[in-house]
Amino acid sequence: MNARLEDIEAIKQLKARYFRTLDTKQWAAWRAVFTDDAAFDGTRRSFNGPDEFCALTSAWLQDAITVHHGHMPEIVFTGPDTARGIWAMFDIVQFPAPTPGSGPYAGNGFIGYGHYEEEYRKISEGWRISLLRLTRLRVDPLPAGSAFAPVPEGLLRSGTSPWL
Amino acid sequence: MNARLEDIEAIKQLKARYFRTLDTKQWAAWRAVFTDDAAFDGTRRSFNGPDEFCALTSAWLQDAITVHHGHMPEIVFTGPDTARGIWAMFDIVQFPAPTPGSGPYAGNGFIGYGHYEEEYRKISEGWRISLLRLTRLRVDPLPAGSAFAPVPEGLLRSGTSPWL
Amino acid sequence: MNARLEDIEAIKQLKARYFRTLDTKQWAAWRAVFTDDAAFDGTRRSFNGPDEFCALTSAWLQDAITVHHGHMPEIVFTGPDTARGIWAMFDIVQFPAPTPGSGPYAGNGFIGYGHYEEEYRKISEGWRISLLRLTRLRVDPLPAGSAFAPVPEGLLRSGTSPWL
Repeated sequence: MNARLEDIEAIKQLKARYFRTLDTKQWAAWRAVFTDDAAFDGTRRSFNGPDEFCALTSAWLQDAITVHHGHMPEIVFTGPDTARGIWAMFDIVQFPAPTPGSGPYAGNGFIGYGHYEEEYRKISEGWRISLLRLTRLRVDPLPAGSAFAPVPEGLLRSGTSPWL
Repeated sequence: MNARLEDIEAIKQLKARYFRTLDTKQWAAWRAVFTDDAAFDGTRRSFNGPDEFCALTSAWLQDAITVHHGHMPEIVFTGPDTARGIWAMFDIVQFPAPTPGSGPYAGNGFIGYGHYEEEYRKISEGWRISLLRLTRLRVDPLPAGSAFAPVPEGLLRSGTSPWL
Repeated sequence: MNARLEDIEAIKQLKARYFRTLDTKQWAAWRAVFTDDAAFDGTRRSFNGPDEFCALTSAWLQDAITVHHGHMPEIVFTGPDTARGIWAMFDIVQFPAPTPGSGPYAGNGFIGYGHYEEEYRKISEGWRISLLRLTRLRVDPLPAGSAFAPVPEGLLRSGTSPWL
Protein backbone atom coordinates (compact mmCIF):
# COMPACT_ATOMS: atom_id res chain seq x y z
CA MET A 1 0.00 0.00 0.00
CA ASN A 2 1.28 3.41 -0.94
CA ALA A 3 0.34 4.93 2.37
CA ARG A 4 -1.43 8.25 2.16
CA LEU A 5 -2.82 8.08 5.62
CA GLU A 6 -3.59 11.77 6.03
CA ASP A 7 -5.64 11.79 2.86
CA ILE A 8 -7.40 8.58 3.86
CA GLU A 9 -8.36 10.08 7.24
CA ALA A 10 -9.52 13.29 5.53
CA ILE A 11 -11.76 11.30 3.16
CA LYS A 12 -13.17 9.31 6.09
CA GLN A 13 -14.03 12.56 7.87
CA LEU A 14 -15.53 13.94 4.63
CA LYS A 15 -17.85 10.93 4.42
CA ALA A 16 -18.64 11.28 8.12
CA ARG A 17 -19.80 14.85 7.46
CA TYR A 18 -21.96 13.51 4.61
CA PHE A 19 -23.78 11.19 7.02
CA ARG A 20 -23.98 13.53 10.00
CA THR A 21 -25.22 16.60 8.15
CA LEU A 22 -27.73 14.48 6.20
CA ASP A 23 -29.31 12.91 9.29
CA THR A 24 -29.28 16.17 11.23
CA LYS A 25 -30.57 18.07 8.18
CA GLN A 26 -27.84 20.66 7.98
CA TRP A 27 -28.44 20.98 4.26
CA ALA A 28 -25.91 23.71 3.40
CA ALA A 29 -23.16 21.71 5.09
CA TRP A 30 -24.40 18.61 3.28
CA ARG A 31 -24.15 20.33 -0.11
CA ALA A 32 -20.59 21.35 0.75
CA VAL A 33 -19.29 17.77 0.80
CA PHE A 34 -19.77 17.54 -2.99
CA THR A 35 -17.77 19.03 -5.85
CA ASP A 36 -19.68 21.44 -8.05
CA ASP A 37 -19.69 18.86 -10.85
CA ALA A 38 -20.56 15.86 -8.69
CA ALA A 39 -22.49 13.04 -10.34
CA PHE A 40 -25.00 10.63 -8.78
CA ASP A 41 -25.96 7.09 -9.71
CA GLY A 42 -28.17 4.38 -8.24
CA THR A 43 -30.47 6.93 -6.69
CA ARG A 44 -34.22 7.23 -7.29
CA ARG A 45 -33.85 9.33 -10.41
CA SER A 46 -31.19 11.26 -12.30
CA PHE A 47 -30.01 14.63 -11.11
CA ASN A 48 -28.47 17.56 -12.92
CA GLY A 49 -25.56 18.14 -10.56
CA PRO A 50 -25.26 18.54 -6.81
CA ASP A 51 -27.49 21.60 -6.44
CA GLU A 52 -30.46 19.72 -7.88
CA PHE A 53 -29.54 16.55 -6.01
CA CYS A 54 -29.37 18.36 -2.69
CA ALA A 55 -32.47 20.47 -3.27
CA LEU A 56 -34.67 17.53 -4.22
CA THR A 57 -33.28 15.15 -1.63
CA SER A 58 -33.55 17.65 1.20
CA ALA A 59 -37.16 18.42 0.24
CA TRP A 60 -37.90 14.67 0.18
CA LEU A 61 -36.30 13.99 3.58
CA GLN A 62 -36.91 17.23 5.51
CA ASP A 63 -39.77 15.81 7.57
CA ALA A 64 -38.57 12.22 7.60
CA ILE A 65 -36.54 10.55 10.33
CA THR A 66 -33.38 9.23 8.73
CA VAL A 67 -30.39 7.27 9.96
CA HIS A 68 -27.45 6.56 7.64
CA HIS A 69 -24.31 4.69 8.68
CA GLY A 70 -21.15 3.85 6.71
CA HIS A 71 -18.81 0.97 7.42
CA MET A 72 -15.55 -0.65 6.37
CA PRO A 73 -14.07 1.88 3.91
CA GLU A 74 -11.60 0.85 1.23
CA ILE A 75 -9.99 3.98 -0.19
CA VAL A 76 -7.42 3.92 -3.01
CA PHE A 77 -5.77 6.78 -4.86
CA THR A 78 -5.90 7.26 -8.62
CA GLY A 79 -3.75 10.41 -8.69
CA PRO A 80 -2.37 13.14 -6.44
CA ASP A 81 -5.80 14.71 -6.04
CA THR A 82 -8.18 11.89 -6.94
CA ALA A 83 -9.35 8.76 -5.12
CA ARG A 84 -11.95 6.04 -5.25
CA GLY A 85 -13.60 4.37 -2.32
CA ILE A 86 -16.25 1.88 -1.32
CA TRP A 87 -18.24 1.78 1.93
CA ALA A 88 -20.78 -0.66 3.25
CA MET A 89 -23.91 1.23 4.27
CA PHE A 90 -27.11 0.97 6.31
CA ASP A 91 -30.07 3.32 6.26
CA ILE A 92 -33.48 3.79 7.81
CA VAL A 93 -35.86 6.33 6.32
CA GLN A 94 -39.33 6.87 7.76
CA PHE A 95 -41.81 9.40 6.43
CA PRO A 96 -44.31 11.15 8.71
CA ALA A 97 -47.10 9.90 6.43
CA PRO A 98 -47.08 7.12 3.81
CA THR A 99 -45.69 8.17 0.45
CA PRO A 100 -48.09 7.27 -2.37
CA GLY A 101 -47.01 5.21 -5.33
CA SER A 102 -45.05 2.02 -5.58
CA GLY A 103 -41.42 1.09 -5.71
CA PRO A 104 -38.79 0.59 -3.06
CA TYR A 105 -39.09 4.04 -1.56
CA ALA A 106 -42.88 4.36 -1.37
CA GLY A 107 -44.98 3.65 1.70
CA ASN A 108 -43.93 4.33 5.29
CA GLY A 109 -40.26 4.11 4.55
CA PHE A 110 -37.61 1.42 4.46
CA ILE A 111 -34.54 -0.18 6.02
CA GLY A 112 -31.76 -0.77 3.52
CA TYR A 113 -28.28 -2.20 3.17
CA GLY A 114 -25.75 -1.81 0.40
CA HIS A 115 -22.62 0.03 -0.64
CA TYR A 116 -21.50 3.49 -1.65
CA GLU A 117 -19.11 3.32 -4.60
CA GLU A 118 -17.53 6.76 -4.80
CA GLU A 119 -14.95 9.01 -6.33
CA TYR A 120 -13.27 11.88 -4.53
CA ARG A 121 -11.37 14.95 -5.69
CA LYS A 122 -9.21 17.31 -3.70
CA ILE A 123 -9.97 20.96 -4.32
CA SER A 124 -8.43 23.98 -2.63
CA GLU A 125 -10.73 23.61 0.40
CA GLY A 126 -10.03 19.89 0.81
CA TRP A 127 -11.44 16.56 -0.35
CA ARG A 128 -14.93 16.40 -1.86
CA ILE A 129 -17.22 13.67 -3.23
CA SER A 130 -17.27 13.86 -7.03
CA LEU A 131 -19.24 10.67 -7.74
CA LEU A 132 -21.73 8.92 -5.47
CA ARG A 133 -23.14 5.59 -6.64
CA LEU A 134 -25.50 3.74 -4.32
CA THR A 135 -25.86 -0.02 -4.72
CA ARG A 136 -28.05 -2.33 -2.68
CA LEU A 137 -27.86 -5.71 -1.00
CA ARG A 138 -31.44 -5.60 0.28
CA VAL A 139 -34.22 -3.14 1.03
CA ASP A 140 -37.07 -3.94 3.44
CA PRO A 141 -40.19 -1.78 3.62
CA LEU A 142 -41.00 -0.56 7.11
CA PRO A 143 -43.94 -2.54 8.51
CA ALA A 144 -47.33 -0.91 7.94
CA GLY A 145 -47.90 -0.28 11.62
CA SER A 146 -44.50 1.24 12.39
CA ALA A 147 -44.75 4.12 14.79
CA PHE A 148 -43.20 7.35 13.63
CA ALA A 149 -40.61 7.62 16.36
CA PRO A 150 -39.08 11.02 16.93
CA VAL A 151 -36.71 11.59 19.80
CA PRO A 152 -38.46 10.80 23.11
CA GLU A 153 -39.06 13.61 25.56
CA GLY A 154 -36.20 14.07 27.98
CA LEU A 155 -33.48 13.05 25.55
CA LEU A 156 -31.26 15.35 23.51
CA ARG A 157 -31.85 15.59 19.78
CA SER A 158 -28.87 15.00 17.51
CA GLY A 159 -27.64 18.08 15.72
CA THR A 160 -29.35 20.66 17.90
CA SER A 161 -26.02 22.11 18.98
CA PRO A 162 -23.30 22.19 16.34
CA TRP A 163 -20.51 20.13 17.79
CA LEU A 164 -17.70 20.49 15.28
CA MET B 1 -6.04 18.93 8.53
CA ASN B 2 -3.27 19.12 11.06
CA ALA B 3 -2.63 15.40 10.99
CA ARG B 4 -2.27 13.78 14.37
CA LEU B 5 -2.92 10.32 13.11
CA GLU B 6 -1.45 8.44 16.06
CA ASP B 7 -3.65 10.34 18.49
CA ILE B 8 -6.70 9.83 16.26
CA GLU B 9 -6.10 6.07 16.16
CA ALA B 10 -5.56 6.00 19.93
CA ILE B 11 -8.89 7.78 20.49
CA LYS B 12 -10.65 5.38 18.11
CA GLN B 13 -9.26 2.46 20.10
CA LEU B 14 -10.28 4.17 23.36
CA LYS B 15 -13.86 4.42 22.13
CA ALA B 16 -13.69 0.81 20.90
CA ARG B 17 -12.79 -0.26 24.44
CA TYR B 18 -15.76 1.76 25.70
CA PHE B 19 -18.12 -0.26 23.49
CA ARG B 20 -16.51 -3.68 23.92
CA THR B 21 -16.15 -3.58 27.68
CA LEU B 22 -19.70 -2.22 28.06
CA ASP B 23 -21.32 -4.97 26.00
CA THR B 24 -19.18 -7.71 27.55
CA LYS B 25 -19.71 -6.23 31.04
CA GLN B 26 -16.09 -5.83 31.98
CA TRP B 27 -17.04 -2.98 34.28
CA ALA B 28 -13.61 -2.15 35.75
CA ALA B 29 -12.18 -1.84 32.26
CA TRP B 30 -15.21 0.25 31.26
CA ARG B 31 -14.63 2.67 34.15
CA ALA B 32 -11.01 3.02 33.03
CA VAL B 33 -11.90 4.68 29.72
CA PHE B 34 -13.06 7.82 31.60
CA THR B 35 -11.08 10.55 33.32
CA ASP B 36 -11.72 10.87 37.03
CA ASP B 37 -13.59 14.13 36.42
CA ALA B 38 -15.60 12.91 33.43
CA ALA B 39 -19.01 14.49 32.85
CA PHE B 40 -22.12 12.95 31.30
CA ASP B 41 -25.01 14.52 29.43
CA GLY B 42 -28.05 13.29 27.55
CA THR B 43 -28.29 10.20 29.70
CA ARG B 44 -31.29 9.10 31.78
CA ARG B 45 -30.36 11.24 34.76
CA SER B 46 -27.45 13.29 36.05
CA PHE B 47 -24.41 11.62 37.56
CA ASN B 48 -21.86 12.83 40.07
CA GLY B 49 -18.76 11.77 38.17
CA PRO B 50 -17.66 8.55 36.50
CA ASP B 51 -17.74 6.34 39.58
CA GLU B 52 -21.43 7.01 40.08
CA PHE B 53 -22.11 6.81 36.35
CA CYS B 54 -20.42 3.44 36.04
CA ALA B 55 -21.89 2.01 39.24
CA LEU B 56 -25.47 2.91 38.35
CA THR B 57 -25.19 2.03 34.69
CA SER B 58 -23.57 -1.32 35.33
CA ALA B 59 -26.27 -2.18 37.88
CA TRP B 60 -28.92 -1.20 35.33
CA LEU B 61 -27.42 -3.24 32.51
CA GLN B 62 -25.81 -6.20 34.30
CA ASP B 63 -28.60 -8.64 33.39
CA ALA B 64 -29.58 -7.00 30.12
CA ILE B 65 -28.36 -7.98 26.68
CA THR B 66 -26.77 -4.91 25.13
CA VAL B 67 -25.19 -4.13 21.77
CA HIS B 68 -23.58 -0.74 21.15
CA HIS B 69 -21.85 0.25 17.91
CA GLY B 70 -20.06 3.46 16.93
CA HIS B 71 -19.61 4.74 13.40
CA MET B 72 -18.01 7.47 11.34
CA PRO B 73 -15.83 9.33 13.85
CA GLU B 74 -14.84 12.96 13.35
CA ILE B 75 -12.03 13.79 15.77
CA VAL B 76 -10.43 17.22 16.05
CA PHE B 77 -7.82 18.53 18.47
CA THR B 78 -8.31 21.53 20.72
CA GLY B 79 -4.83 21.41 22.28
CA PRO B 80 -1.82 19.15 22.72
CA ASP B 81 -3.72 16.91 25.13
CA THR B 82 -7.35 17.66 24.39
CA ALA B 83 -9.71 16.69 21.59
CA ARG B 84 -13.36 16.64 20.63
CA GLY B 85 -15.13 14.03 18.61
CA ILE B 86 -18.51 12.93 17.32
CA TRP B 87 -19.63 9.39 16.47
CA ALA B 88 -22.84 8.06 15.00
CA MET B 89 -24.19 5.31 17.25
CA PHE B 90 -26.60 2.38 17.37
CA ASP B 91 -27.73 0.47 20.43
CA ILE B 92 -30.00 -2.37 21.44
CA VAL B 93 -30.82 -2.87 25.11
CA GLN B 94 -33.11 -5.67 26.24
CA PHE B 95 -33.98 -6.36 29.86
CA PRO B 96 -34.68 -9.88 31.13
CA ALA B 97 -38.04 -8.64 32.44
CA PRO B 98 -39.98 -5.48 31.59
CA THR B 99 -38.84 -2.39 33.45
CA PRO B 100 -41.78 -0.64 35.14
CA GLY B 101 -42.53 3.00 34.55
CA SER B 102 -42.72 5.06 31.43
CA GLY B 103 -40.27 6.93 29.30
CA PRO B 104 -37.96 5.88 26.51
CA TYR B 105 -36.04 3.31 28.52
CA ALA B 106 -38.94 1.55 30.26
CA GLY B 107 -40.52 -1.68 29.06
CA ASN B 108 -38.69 -4.57 27.41
CA GLY B 109 -35.93 -2.40 26.08
CA PHE B 110 -35.25 -0.38 22.96
CA ILE B 111 -33.36 0.04 19.70
CA GLY B 112 -31.82 3.48 19.32
CA TYR B 113 -29.84 5.66 16.96
CA GLY B 114 -28.01 8.88 17.57
CA HIS B 115 -24.61 10.42 18.20
CA TYR B 116 -21.97 10.60 20.88
CA GLU B 117 -20.60 14.13 21.21
CA GLU B 118 -17.46 13.80 23.29
CA GLU B 119 -14.36 15.39 24.70
CA TYR B 120 -11.11 13.58 25.32
CA ARG B 121 -8.07 14.31 27.46
CA LYS B 122 -4.66 12.70 27.41
CA ILE B 123 -3.38 11.71 30.82
CA SER B 124 -0.18 9.87 31.67
CA GLU B 125 -1.75 6.49 30.86
CA GLY B 126 -3.15 7.65 27.52
CA TRP B 127 -6.34 9.18 26.11
CA ARG B 128 -9.53 9.14 28.17
CA ILE B 129 -13.14 10.30 27.69
CA SER B 130 -13.71 13.47 29.72
CA LEU B 131 -17.20 14.34 28.43
CA LEU B 132 -19.82 11.98 27.02
CA ARG B 133 -23.00 13.52 25.60
CA LEU B 134 -25.55 11.20 24.03
CA THR B 135 -27.97 12.65 21.50
CA ARG B 136 -30.69 10.79 19.64
CA LEU B 137 -32.12 10.54 16.14
CA ARG B 138 -34.77 7.98 17.08
CA VAL B 139 -35.56 5.41 19.74
CA ASP B 140 -37.92 2.48 19.13
CA PRO B 141 -39.26 0.37 21.99
CA LEU B 142 -38.68 -3.34 21.56
CA PRO B 143 -41.93 -5.06 20.58
CA ALA B 144 -43.90 -6.46 23.51
CA GLY B 145 -43.38 -10.06 22.41
CA SER B 146 -39.65 -9.84 21.80
CA ALA B 147 -37.86 -12.95 22.95
CA PHE B 148 -35.02 -12.40 25.36
CA ALA B 149 -32.26 -13.79 23.17
CA PRO B 150 -29.06 -14.76 24.86
CA VAL B 151 -26.32 -16.49 22.91
CA PRO B 152 -27.62 -19.77 21.41
CA GLU B 153 -26.14 -23.02 22.64
CA GLY B 154 -23.15 -24.11 20.61
CA LEU B 155 -21.90 -20.59 19.90
CA LEU B 156 -19.18 -18.72 21.74
CA ARG B 157 -20.17 -15.86 24.00
CA SER B 158 -18.43 -12.51 23.43
CA GLY B 159 -16.04 -11.48 26.15
CA THR B 160 -15.67 -14.87 27.81
CA SER B 161 -11.95 -14.93 27.06
CA PRO B 162 -10.18 -11.57 27.23
CA TRP B 163 -8.75 -11.05 23.78
CA LEU B 164 -6.68 -7.90 24.09
CA MET C 1 0.91 2.92 21.36
CA ASN C 2 3.72 1.83 19.12
CA ALA C 3 2.17 3.38 16.05
CA ARG C 4 2.14 1.16 13.01
CA LEU C 5 -0.51 3.12 11.22
CA GLU C 6 0.15 1.80 7.73
CA ASP C 7 -0.20 -1.78 8.91
CA ILE C 8 -3.34 -0.91 10.87
CA GLU C 9 -4.92 0.65 7.78
CA ALA C 10 -3.89 -2.35 5.67
CA ILE C 11 -5.53 -4.75 8.15
CA LYS C 12 -8.69 -2.60 8.18
CA GLN C 13 -8.84 -2.80 4.39
CA LEU C 14 -8.18 -6.55 4.54
CA LYS C 15 -11.18 -7.00 6.82
CA ALA C 16 -13.22 -4.71 4.58
CA ARG C 17 -12.48 -7.03 1.65
CA TYR C 18 -13.59 -9.95 3.82
CA PHE C 19 -16.99 -8.33 4.32
CA ARG C 20 -17.47 -6.94 0.82
CA THR C 21 -16.49 -10.05 -1.10
CA LEU C 22 -18.59 -12.22 1.23
CA ASP C 23 -21.77 -10.20 0.79
CA THR C 24 -21.27 -9.77 -2.95
CA LYS C 25 -20.29 -13.46 -3.29
CA GLN C 26 -16.96 -12.96 -4.94
CA TRP C 27 -15.77 -16.25 -3.49
CA ALA C 28 -12.27 -16.41 -4.99
CA ALA C 29 -11.51 -12.96 -3.63
CA TRP C 30 -13.02 -14.00 -0.30
CA ARG C 31 -10.73 -17.04 -0.07
CA ALA C 32 -7.76 -14.75 -0.77
CA VAL C 33 -8.14 -12.82 2.50
CA PHE C 34 -7.05 -15.91 4.48
CA THR C 35 -3.63 -17.50 4.92
CA ASP C 36 -3.35 -21.05 3.62
CA ASP C 37 -3.21 -22.34 7.19
CA ALA C 38 -6.00 -20.18 8.56
CA ALA C 39 -8.03 -21.57 11.45
CA PHE C 40 -11.68 -20.96 12.32
CA ASP C 41 -13.50 -21.03 15.63
CA GLY C 42 -16.98 -20.24 16.85
CA THR C 43 -18.51 -21.13 13.53
CA ARG C 44 -21.20 -23.75 12.93
CA ARG C 45 -18.76 -26.64 12.72
CA SER C 46 -15.05 -27.26 12.46
CA PHE C 47 -13.22 -26.82 9.18
CA ASN C 48 -10.05 -28.33 7.84
CA GLY C 49 -8.42 -25.11 6.65
CA PRO C 50 -9.56 -22.21 4.54
CA ASP C 51 -10.33 -24.15 1.37
CA GLU C 52 -12.91 -26.27 3.17
CA PHE C 53 -14.19 -23.27 5.13
CA CYS C 54 -14.71 -21.22 1.99
CA ALA C 55 -16.15 -24.08 -0.06
CA LEU C 56 -18.75 -25.03 2.54
CA THR C 57 -19.62 -21.49 3.55
CA SER C 58 -20.02 -20.29 -0.03
CA ALA C 59 -22.27 -23.28 -0.82
CA TRP C 60 -24.33 -22.48 2.28
CA LEU C 61 -24.70 -18.77 1.49
CA GLN C 62 -24.71 -18.70 -2.33
CA ASP C 63 -28.48 -18.22 -2.61
CA ALA C 64 -28.94 -16.36 0.65
CA ILE C 65 -29.07 -12.59 1.08
CA THR C 66 -26.35 -11.66 3.53
CA VAL C 67 -25.19 -8.41 5.12
CA HIS C 68 -22.12 -8.35 7.36
CA HIS C 69 -20.72 -5.21 8.98
CA GLY C 70 -17.66 -4.71 11.17
CA HIS C 71 -17.18 -1.93 13.69
CA MET C 72 -14.72 -0.45 16.15
CA PRO C 73 -11.49 -2.32 15.45
CA GLU C 74 -8.77 -2.70 18.06
CA ILE C 75 -5.61 -3.93 16.36
CA VAL C 76 -2.37 -4.66 18.20
CA PHE C 77 0.89 -6.12 16.95
CA THR C 78 2.53 -9.22 18.37
CA GLY C 79 5.57 -9.14 16.07
CA PRO C 80 6.87 -7.57 12.87
CA ASP C 81 4.49 -9.65 10.74
CA THR C 82 1.80 -10.72 13.20
CA ALA C 83 -1.13 -8.94 14.79
CA ARG C 84 -4.30 -9.55 16.74
CA GLY C 85 -7.54 -7.68 16.44
CA ILE C 86 -11.11 -7.54 17.64
CA TRP C 87 -14.12 -6.10 15.79
CA ALA C 88 -17.72 -5.69 16.80
CA MET C 89 -19.95 -7.25 14.16
CA PHE C 90 -23.51 -7.36 12.84
CA ASP C 91 -24.98 -9.78 10.35
CA ILE C 92 -28.22 -10.63 8.62
CA VAL C 93 -28.53 -13.91 6.77
CA GLN C 94 -31.75 -14.87 5.02
CA PHE C 95 -32.24 -18.09 3.09
CA PRO C 96 -34.52 -18.29 0.04
CA ALA C 97 -36.38 -21.16 1.75
CA PRO C 98 -36.38 -22.25 5.40
CA THR C 99 -33.43 -24.42 6.39
CA PRO C 100 -34.58 -27.60 8.13
CA GLY C 101 -33.29 -28.61 11.52
CA SER C 102 -32.85 -26.67 14.70
CA GLY C 103 -30.17 -24.48 16.18
CA PRO C 104 -29.32 -20.83 15.77
CA TYR C 105 -28.83 -20.96 12.03
CA ALA C 106 -31.89 -23.01 11.02
CA GLY C 107 -35.17 -21.56 9.77
CA ASN C 108 -35.53 -18.47 7.61
CA GLY C 109 -32.29 -16.94 8.78
CA PHE C 110 -31.15 -14.67 11.58
CA ILE C 111 -29.93 -11.26 12.70
CA GLY C 112 -26.87 -11.46 14.89
CA TYR C 113 -24.44 -9.37 16.89
CA GLY C 114 -21.06 -10.22 18.32
CA HIS C 115 -17.34 -9.91 17.80
CA TYR C 116 -14.63 -11.22 15.54
CA GLU C 117 -11.50 -12.10 17.52
CA GLU C 118 -8.77 -12.53 14.95
CA GLU C 119 -5.11 -13.02 14.21
CA TYR C 120 -3.35 -11.66 11.15
CA ARG C 121 -0.09 -12.53 9.43
CA LYS C 122 1.79 -10.57 6.80
CA ILE C 123 2.87 -12.68 3.84
CA SER C 124 4.64 -11.52 0.70
CA GLU C 125 1.36 -10.35 -0.85
CA GLY C 126 0.28 -8.41 2.24
CA TRP C 127 -1.74 -8.99 5.43
CA ARG C 128 -4.01 -12.01 5.70
CA ILE C 129 -6.41 -13.43 8.33
CA SER C 130 -4.80 -16.44 10.02
CA LEU C 131 -7.39 -17.00 12.75
CA LEU C 132 -11.07 -16.06 12.72
CA ARG C 133 -13.06 -16.62 15.90
CA LEU C 134 -16.69 -15.53 15.94
CA THR C 135 -18.31 -14.80 19.28
CA ARG C 136 -21.87 -13.70 19.89
CA LEU C 137 -23.76 -11.17 22.00
CA ARG C 138 -27.18 -12.18 20.67
CA VAL C 139 -28.79 -13.94 17.73
CA ASP C 140 -32.42 -13.40 16.75
CA PRO C 141 -34.20 -15.69 14.29
CA LEU C 142 -35.82 -13.86 11.41
CA PRO C 143 -39.59 -13.72 11.91
CA ALA C 144 -41.50 -16.54 10.23
CA GLY C 145 -43.22 -14.23 7.78
CA SER C 146 -40.14 -12.27 6.70
CA ALA C 147 -40.20 -11.54 3.01
CA PHE C 148 -37.17 -12.64 1.08
CA ALA C 149 -36.06 -9.22 -0.05
CA PRO C 150 -33.69 -9.07 -2.97
CA VAL C 151 -32.72 -5.75 -4.47
CA PRO C 152 -35.83 -3.91 -5.72
CA GLU C 153 -36.21 -3.29 -9.42
CA GLY C 154 -34.70 0.00 -10.50
CA LEU C 155 -31.87 -0.06 -7.98
CA LEU C 156 -28.28 -1.16 -8.57
CA ARG C 157 -27.14 -4.43 -7.07
CA SER C 158 -23.99 -4.35 -4.93
CA GLY C 159 -21.00 -6.05 -6.48
CA THR C 160 -22.27 -6.19 -10.05
CA SER C 161 -19.41 -4.01 -11.25
CA PRO C 162 -16.06 -4.56 -9.57
CA TRP C 163 -15.21 -1.24 -8.03
CA LEU C 164 -11.73 -1.70 -6.63
